[in-house]
Amino acid sequence: MATYKKYNREQYLKDFSTIMDLRPLIEKYMDEAFENGVDNLVLAGVGGTMAIMMPFEAFAKKRTTVPVYLENAAEVVLGTNKAITERSLVVLYSDSGTTKETVALAKYCREKGIPTIGVSCTEDAPLQQYLKYPIVSKAADAYSCDGDFMRLSLIVGAFLKKTGDFPDYEEFMESLANAPKAMADIKEAVEDEVKEYAYSIKDEPYHMLVGSGNLWGSTYCFAMCYLEEMQWIHTKSITAPEFFHGTLELLEEDTSIMIFKGEDETRALAERVENFAKKISKKVKVVDTKDYPAEGIAEKYRGDFAPFFLEAYLGRLIAHLEDATGHSLDIRRYYRVMDY
Amino acid sequence: MATYKKYNREQYLKDFSTIMDLRPLIEKYMDEAFENGVDNLVLAGVGGTMAIMMPFEAFAKKRTTVPVYLENAAEVVLGTNKAITERSLVVLYSDSGTTKETVALAKYCREKGIPTIGVSCTEDAPLQQYLKYPIVSKAADAYSCDGDFMRLSLIVGAFLKKTGDFPDYEEFMESLANAPKAMADIKEAVEDEVKEYAYSIKDEPYHMLVGSGNLWGSTYCFAMCYLEEMQWIHTKSITAPEFFHGTLELLEEDTSIMIFKGEDETRALAERVENFAKKISKKVKVVDTKDYPAEGIAEKYRGDFAPFFLEAYLGRLIAHLEDATGHSLDIRRYYRVMDY
Repeated sequence: MATYKKYNREQYLKDFSTIMDLRPLIEKYMDEAFENGVDNLVLAGVGGTMAIMMPFEAFAKKRTTVPVYLENAAEVVLGTNKAITERSLVVLYSDSGTTKETVALAKYCREKGIPTIGVSCTEDAPLQQYLKYPIVSKAADAYSCDGDFMRLSLIVGAFLKKTGDFPDYEEFMESLANAPKAMADIKEAVEDEVKEYAYSIKDEPYHMLVGSGNLWGSTYCFAMCYLEEMQWIHTKSITAPEFFHGTLELLEEDTSIMIFKGEDETRALAERVENFAKKISKKVKVVDTKDYPAEGIAEKYRGDFAPFFLEAYLGRLIAHLEDATGHSLDIRRYYRVMDY
Repeated sequence: MATYKKYNREQYLKDFSTIMDLRPLIEKYMDEAFENGVDNLVLAGVGGTMAIMMPFEAFAKKRTTVPVYLENAAEVVLGTNKAITERSLVVLYSDSGTTKETVALAKYCREKGIPTIGVSCTEDAPLQQYLKYPIVSKAADAYSCDGDFMRLSLIVGAFLKKTGDFPDYEEFMESLANAPKAMADIKEAVEDEVKEYAYSIKDEPYHMLVGSGNLWGSTYCFAMCYLEEMQWIHTKSITAPEFFHGTLELLEEDTSIMIFKGEDETRALAERVENFAKKISKKVKVVDTKDYPAEGIAEKYRGDFAPFFLEAYLGRLIAHLEDATGHSLDIRRYYRVMDY
């Protein structure tokens, strides 16, 4: 969940080259989990690590009738979902392996006999000791959420293969293996545009951010974890259909709004916001994943990979915004600075 | 989903006196639905009518292992959840019975043979013609979400009775019957405090709003449907655990923050925000549902009724805020004014 500005193609592709190697281990874990019986899939996290689960809630829910739950780790550990049992599979993620709420949930699951599968980037992280199915992926923390999305695709893809809801699993995996290159291409293609946009918004005190369907996680996360936490810029993030039920009334000629348009079923919902916003505001930015060729990603999966494409873009945007505002992404007033 | 400032105890209790009369009809509908088999419960809406479903997602999920889905009507109609089938029960709500997205989902369900149960306040509303199990409740639209919560309690309560997860259903219904009086008492008890608070914030351009667990729906809705839509005041609504993963960095000495503290499992999460916020900001408002006696509500259900208590409070707050700002709750720039 950290974005580093130093992007270098060779290093990027090298860092990601080991991710697909996790596939056999994850498939073995799924075989084991399903031998014991699995009634539902639980995607749990907090902050950025809950946001990165969101596209996979969408990915799974449109493919399977097996219940899929997206949960906040801090809430669900309090017993708020009775369906989470020893016949669930709980997916956890923490690059550092130290995120307090996620570690607490892993421990809770261990004590209750609820199976967990999870990822962090170091073997001796607290998270690892509580996971039933631990995954260590050392390149975890390198570039925005790009790598997180790849690992979660492996996990949720393998889950859906076991439920019988992913007949084209092998074909999907071929596209997934090409994702790092596709994302690197996007990062390079958008460089000039992103830089110009970053400088154009450097003094904006407030942005609306709108996304729909499987882009909602990145919309929510870019607003809160990047603009608010790392740049101290006010935001309102809102899904495209919800925009029309309140937030729209605040849109004026000089209101900055970013609209993220993907390629899933909900694309038209973001387009509706775009059409409206352009009538009112002079500061409308649309990021449309359709603009990126993404070689190696099969046409039929472009909708599923749109969050990857957007993330590749946003990783560059935040890096340039840091330059433009002169506000380091590493400064915090309170987080891990003050006790609370 | 409209709040009217003219509160009058006698009229309020009279308006709500017919709601409990819906119980036999709703129980009959549930008997019928379960005869055909029900695999999951779907709570669907958009904007305020999605927000009012949220406490009931929490209510059901902590009591049953039967899958419960909260869905945005505009998204789910596009086929984003495969688990919604002719063995689902979809709950819909629209006071006017004309909310476009909700009516479209009702129509979609009708065409697919997916059973729906829903409420509006007039018989000849478009929504009614598509519902399998239609409910007309004429006092629907009177006071904030108070009445909506009562009707949804009847529906979700009866659902849980049928799944066998609500052994104390009768006892709960006794408390529910007392809810109008409890809410009226709260409205009257808070009158002076709310008025003073409303005038103290009348010039604030931005508020953070924080709630957790079953208060999240009202937190989200008060921010978007009331402050943003009806008062044109900027907000950021965020759940209590998520607050610490980004938004906290924007809190300063003069930042206005409202924290809604309920009585469910997640109360400590809101308390953590309260403790932190009071160290930083001089403009912290805590609404704690524990402050209200709520006679007639059994102690064991106070956690479930906290959203009712909060709504009683917020209904008065928005009425006084309208007076304080001089900005009518009925003015819209765009909604139902402009085509989009």
